[in-house]
Amino acid sequence: VLWFEGRLQPGPVAPFDLTDRGLLLGDGLFDTALGLEGRIVFEEAHVARLVAGARTLGFSIEPEPIREAMRALAASLPRAAIRTNATRGSGPRGLAPPGAVRPVLWATAAPWDSALAFAPLRLLPVAVRRNETSVAAGVKTLGYLDAVLAAGEAKRRGFDEALFRNTGGEVACAGTGNLFAVFGDTLVTPPLADGVLPGIVRAEILERIAPSLGLAVQERSLSLEALEEADAVILTNSLRLLAPVETVGATGFGSATNPTVARLAEALGRAVARDCGVAVETLR
Amino acid sequence: VLWFEGRLQPGPVAPFDLTDRGLLLGDGLFDTALGLEGRIVFEEAHVARLVAGARTLGFSIEPEPIREAMRALAASLPRAAIRTNATRGSGPRGLAPPGAVRPVLWATAAPWDSALAFAPLRLLPVAVRRNETSVAAGVKTLGYLDAVLAAGEAKRRGFDEALFRNTGGEVACAGTGNLFAVFGDTLVTPPLADGVLPGIVRAEILERIAPSLGLAVQERSLSLEALEEADAVILTNSLRLLAPVETVGATGFGSATNPTVARLAEALGRAVARDCGVAVETLR
Repeated sequence: VLWFEGRLQPGPVAPFDLTDRGLLLGDGLFDTALGLEGRIVFEEAHVARLVAGARTLGFSIEPEPIREAMRALAASLPRAAIRTNATRGSGPRGLAPPGAVRPVLWATAAPWDSALAFAPLRLLPVAVRRNETSVAAGVKTLGYLDAVLAAGEAKRRGFDEALFRNTGGEVACAGTGNLFAVFGDTLVTPPLADGVLPGIVRAEILERIAPSLGLAVQERSLSLEALEEADAVILTNSLRLLAPVETVGATGFGSATNPTVARLAEALGRAVARDCGVAVETLR
Repeated sequence: VLWFEGRLQPGPVAPFDLTDRGLLLGDGLFDTALGLEGRIVFEEAHVARLVAGARTLGFSIEPEPIREAMRALAASLPRAAIRTNATRGSGPRGLAPPGAVRPVLWATAAPWDSALAFAPLRLLPVAVRRNETSVAAGVKTLGYLDAVLAAGEAKRRGFDEALFRNTGGEVACAGTGNLFAVFGDTLVTPPLADGVLPGIVRAEILERIAPSLGLAVQERSLSLEALEEADAVILTNSLRLLAPVETVGATGFGSATNPTVARLAEALGRAVARDCGVAVETLR
């Protein structure tokens, strides 16, 4: 299902300006959110991140149409993976934006499979680095080609996802999620400055869930070697919620049976269900 | 003017799949070429680079429709800046391409202003690094957001273009062109492995023009400090052809009056004119 120009449309094809800067230059950003029974999980955080991300790129989008698009799509499917996109709109030839920027917004929904939630993953550290020197590293921009190619490499080698280090060699994130290492009662996650997207679930865990469970949290740089010393590793994103990481390259982890991981997953599941007013079993 | 689905169309708006991977993930590439009096400058090199770039990204495009699009656009304007785009087409939600990839091709043309050719430029070295660890660094992919933001920064600070170093600190390229340093009778340009796009004019100078003038050529890494020691610096791309660089940050160069630069510009102008069967004055 597509939401474009203020309304739902059945198919994905619509009249579109083929000089749109999102299409030609990757000059735009997106968000992925989970819709459950007509409501968006952590809706305000998703809307605020899109608005803030556009501001970081130098253009302005309004929160209300974003909310309208997400809600219309969530109402169209009981369990929805919702992708909302915004570009700087079209402009003249070349890199410079037009004087009057007219952003373009659209969103799509696909059925969300609850089997994605909390399912374990195997990560392959890849050679390509995440470029933390770029403003774009902190924004979910449309430029995902490195993640596409790295995911392909991971699949070919029998893994589920790629793990990216940054240009300084520090662990940054997975192709489609943030990473946490569990050391006893402490959660460690790379700081945003290491080339990390400000994940919605990441923030939820750091700011609310971990403290509510009495777990210490640290945002600090992690080498791959330090990560491999962890008791458990988890990946978080808005569709997988919290995935126990089984292996990072050749290193295995008992993440799926780690009691701290279990407590985090249970608390996150409750928070998600509560946020949408659904039973926690909806996520199973 | 737009070429899409096999024909010219007057405006830029056309029915387009808003789940196209080029739009959602930057999963595609493009080419910029100059059309003069109905012909494409260095046509076969442009076509071959697009085909090879797609292959590098893991999908296949045919040369014939590319040629058809470029030629139709060149025939529509006496002097045309032609941008040809190809994406991996649409696919299901997520990063993985569909089993059957159906690439999408389109191209646009804008009037080319001959004042662009051989005009001097001022370059600002920027902090964001070009990520030479990415396969995408060697392909003209749709992900140009770093170049967009860096060009904005350069303009705000009174420069024309950004100069990128790579993650190792070596000079890579400008936002929209390759760089050469002139040391006496020797031309030095960073190797492709330093995160450099394989420019069509770059190759023409390295392989034909410099040798024809008896100039030595070296592809080797250049620090910013080494670049600043050059007698002259030039930027090359398909629309500017060969731009003498007046300043790199605070360092000035007499590039516009350097005799080697003048010989290169004259020889390139002749090669371009010959390739299109036009008088060399067409470029002035």
